[in-house]
Amino acid sequence: MLRAAVYGYGNIGRFSLEALLASPDFEVAGVVSASLSAGSLGDIPVVRSIDELSQVDVAILCSPSRAVPDLAAQLLEKGICTVDSFDIHTEVWDVRQRLDAVAKAHGTACIMSAGWDPGTDSMVRALLEAMAPEGLTYTNFGPGMSMGHTVAVKAVPGVKNALSMTIPVGTGIHRRMVYVELEDGADFEAVSSAIKNDPYFVHDETHVMAVPSVDALKDMGHGVDLTRKGVSGKTQNQRMSFQMSINNPALTGQILVAAARAVKKQAPGCYTLIEIAPIHLLPGETEDLVRRLV
Amino acid sequence: MLRAAVYGYGNIGRFSLEALLASPDFEVAGVVSASLSAGSLGDIPVVRSIDELSQVDVAILCSPSRAVPDLAAQLLEKGICTVDSFDIHTEVWDVRQRLDAVAKAHGTACIMSAGWDPGTDSMVRALLEAMAPEGLTYTNFGPGMSMGHTVAVKAVPGVKNALSMTIPVGTGIHRRMVYVELEDGADFEAVSSAIKNDPYFVHDETHVMAVPSVDALKDMGHGVDLTRKGVSGKTQNQRMSFQMSINNPALTGQILVAAARAVKKQAPGCYTLIEIAPIHLLPGETEDLVRRLV
Repeated sequence: MLRAAVYGYGNIGRFSLEALLASPDFEVAGVVSASLSAGSLGDIPVVRSIDELSQVDVAILCSPSRAVPDLAAQLLEKGICTVDSFDIHTEVWDVRQRLDAVAKAHGTACIMSAGWDPGTDSMVRALLEAMAPEGLTYTNFGPGMSMGHTVAVKAVPGVKNALSMTIPVGTGIHRRMVYVELEDGADFEAVSSAIKNDPYFVHDETHVMAVPSVDALKDMGHGVDLTRKGVSGKTQNQRMSFQMSINNPALTGQILVAAARAVKKQAPGCYTLIEIAPIHLLPGETEDLVRRLV
Repeated sequence: MLRAAVYGYGNIGRFSLEALLASPDFEVAGVVSASLSAGSLGDIPVVRSIDELSQVDVAILCSPSRAVPDLAAQLLEKGICTVDSFDIHTEVWDVRQRLDAVAKAHGTACIMSAGWDPGTDSMVRALLEAMAPEGLTYTNFGPGMSMGHTVAVKAVPGVKNALSMTIPVGTGIHRRMVYVELEDGADFEAVSSAIKNDPYFVHDETHVMAVPSVDALKDMGHGVDLTRKGVSGKTQNQRMSFQMSINNPALTGQILVAAARAVKKQAPGCYTLIEIAPIHLLPGETEDLVRRLV
């Protein structure tokens, strides 16, 4: 049994805990949360600092992406393996290099960006490129709520509550539909402009709307249509696609738990999911997995 | 540059050679064929025995599946890495164990069953199970020509030429439509019975038809619809699917080349594709691949 701690208890933390409890090979060490009260999760220890938990093999980091790199580095320095769903694609390589050095220096390991995109979608993209090296892959998201984008909007001054919807318009292009509940006295134009200039939104067509209640609009369903048309050897028109229709934080929590299992099988260092063999994500013996899945 | 030999020059061998020639990181050592005449492939050496080729890093085995285990063992004993697309699902584990011992004893490595099914589809099945551990996956093939099944029919006495088509009838169930050109004086009923009792066909609804010309029916297109509905944590109705419409031997040849690249990055032993990190299938530097694909 592996002992895992859930670090942060928002949507991803809650669903990660559910996935841990449903996994045959994990024991929950506890939940680290700044706001959750002790005893609120029944038998599961709720603590303010991970130092209060004993024998943590791996920490599942469920903080906002921007807090992840520093937090991961701190835990790796304590000798605790980490997994996270850091989702700022453009910063993945630099964070991987930083955490790789920390992990190697402390004999621990880290799997980062282990959600569904970046994450399992990245594995599918790698696979499709291996199958048809020349060609184009388009990743079309949604319609669905983007967790990362919503968290980014909530951090904008003047925003009380927010929802960022991702709408696929084809060939990997997306429209962002942002619904905000404003704090009293907030300037809508300033909020709208801050959102549109945030790195999460600056490259996409973004519409910001003020609404009286964001909660009335929320649904955690999401999806993807990842498609490639390419060339195998000299043979044209090889077509492949991958689709999902899923509860977003539930899938992210489940993938984080699979990564938490895989991270203990890696040599010291930091990895993204494309660097992990799929079999490491699964519980059970190699023989059974090969017999069932190959 | 890796030096690869193509062993066997049927459909898979021909397309594997095309994929090698299109790859930036491979050099063709030569083609081993019992029937191809020297000089028939221009500058590419055509030989009867792999011993006639120098410095072979990896051999791509393109023989019928049933010949693969002995051939792989012989080459691994010579210190040559091998990859193959061995496709008898029920025998994969035993062959893997046999080749694993040979490879480890000789400090070489082998990736077996590295076509698209078993192969990349196996990787997708592993991934979908990690994403939704409880649930059902159905692999629906075709319509398309099955290479392995066609080779099995051709080996039946009395069969001059054959085509085995795979027809999906849903929930992972398939009908086999087998078209045979008989040798003079062959007994159709005996041929039909031999085919229906072959391990490749015994579990499926199989129809055998005698036709005047098999060549007139042939098309190497194929496809798959691999679908899973399952549970992430405690969240039901997570839906995922993977589809392809492809030239079958062209895709198999390309995946074999990707596996030939990956096999040189593994510790001694025998592996199936679910045991290989997707990034190992691709040429280029880790940094570039992580930046582009994650």
